Amino acid sequence: MKVIRTIEELRSELRERTRSGHEPVGLVPTMGYLHEGHASLMRKAREMTQTVVLSIFVNPIQFGPGEDYETYPRDEARDLELARAEGVDIVFIPTVEVMYPQPIKTKVSVADITSLLCGASRPGHFDGVTTVVSKLFHIVKPDYAFFGMKDAQQVAVIEQMVRDLSMDITIVPCPIVREADGLALSSRNVYLKPEERRQALVLSRSLQKAREAIASGQAETAGQIRQLLRDTISEAPLADIDYVEAAVFPELDPLQDEDKISDAEGRVLLALAVRFGRTRLIDNTLI
Amino acid sequence: MKVIRTIEELRSELRERTRSGHEPVGLVPTMGYLHEGHASLMRKAREMTQTVVLSIFVNPIQFGPGEDYETYPRDEARDLELARAEGVDIVFIPTVEVMYPQPIKTKVSVADITSLLCGASRPGHFDGVTTVVSKLFHIVKPDYAFFGMKDAQQVAVIEQMVRDLSMDITIVPCPIVREADGLALSSRNVYLKPEERRQALVLSRSLQKAREAIASGQAETAGQIRQLLRDTISEAPLADIDYVEAAVFPELDPLQDEDKISDAEGRVLLALAVRFGRTRLIDNTLI
Repeated sequence: MKVIRTIEELRSELRERTRSGHEPVGLVPTMGYLHEGHASLMRKAREMTQTVVLSIFVNPIQFGPGEDYETYPRDEARDLELARAEGVDIVFIPTVEVMYPQPIKTKVSVADITSLLCGASRPGHFDGVTTVVSKLFHIVKPDYAFFGMKDAQQVAVIEQMVRDLSMDITIVPCPIVREADGLALSSRNVYLKPEERRQALVLSRSLQKAREAIASGQAETAGQIRQLLRDTISEAPLADIDYVEAAVFPELDPLQDEDKISDAEGRVLLALAVRFGRTRLIDNTLI
Repeated sequence: MKVIRTIEELRSELRERTRSGHEPVGLVPTMGYLHEGHASLMRKAREMTQTVVLSIFVNPIQFGPGEDYETYPRDEARDLELARAEGVDIVFIPTVEVMYPQPIKTKVSVADITSLLCGASRPGHFDGVTTVVSKLFHIVKPDYAFFGMKDAQQVAVIEQMVRDLSMDITIVPCPIVREADGLALSSRNVYLKPEERRQALVLSRSLQKAREAIASGQAETAGQIRQLLRDTISEAPLADIDYVEAAVFPELDPLQDEDKISDAEGRVLLALAVRFGRTRLIDNTLI
């Protein structure tokens, strides 16, 4: 496994690998502090491609003022160990100076589907994501890029960008990975105090309850489902709801209260963001 | 020469050509109605690359409301003849439906250097340019892309985009091509009535006068040069000045009135946009 820190060296390494037939190329873009969710992306990439590139970059331009850019957890040594164990070929770890040698004037932005859910709570967040991801795509030129479905909106936004800009890349969304007790894996889980961690189970539990209520016919409309989710989450006294939404995926058109889940064309995303203390967690499920 | 109208066919043709060693790839992106200026780009591309792709696409999203999208001159048969004569390998002529099968939600935009000159007179214009150019870059994956310096700001904006987004493409700016009497070639010259065409010579003449005044020390400051340009252009009664500017290139920071041209770091762009009747013409020179 090669650890590479500059764009030039990465390009030359990738040229050599593709020249010697190590294609297709897969990219797993991450912010590091890797967990089993990231590992599942690397495994999928290992399965589908001949050159697996893992990028680790805590991207400042996707954090808003007052968000956790400074304190975002970092542990390079542990990340490299995990990447090695998963058979990654190249780890690309640029500094901020490598990625943004001068202040960046160019922005890639996706309209409409970024204006709700996490886009509403985190203005500018998705512009930062699409800009850095398109930059990583231009650097690595992957045939496949792997993203976790925990950030379902991110997957929808990136698929929209790839389609709109005719990028020759296949996006591979990978399922959410959970702890045994249901909590969706997130690098931010490390922030949780023990009692917050315990109460955070209400996220996956509420989604599970919603799935069951839909399956049994107990709840039919988007309004009923949103209410059920809110009621369940509110059982946890430390939970501070940011949003609870039911929307068509991947278009992300929110369903009206009276819309029946079963009438929606295609898949419906139930998505939620909830704060526990200073930690904002997200979770979702596709119906 | 192959004439290709779909993205899929273009990709497969380019894959074959690069597989058989016809690299590097050069792209000459145009809106058609080709003239000797475009021909000079094709010749440069022919000289530097093994696969020359000419794209012809009148891009609706770079025209503002009330601009000349509908009436922009088109002549495919003549364009193909010229491309063939210049030894182009592939002409890519997509329809609007091919380029924008659904309304595009993604935008590539460059801040700051798009807010003055043509960016000020044509709000949104450069967003349309950078978006379609980045799309063409993703489709063709050129090693080199060729742009005329008549649109000097466009060159600066695209170079900024390429640098900011780490696109692996070298931009090759090519000199302005002029008629024997000095008028910069433009597809829009065809709009000019005979008297407008005659008076339009004031553009190149004013730039020439400015160069001479700087060379002889007759004019030193940006304020004097702008005044000289304005005075000269105003000698043509049909000329309606949109802007007259002196700015550092390619950063496009405008010089202050009291700034000496000779003190500027690097090159100074003298740029102007002038309307004759309904036709807006641009011209510029680099000092």
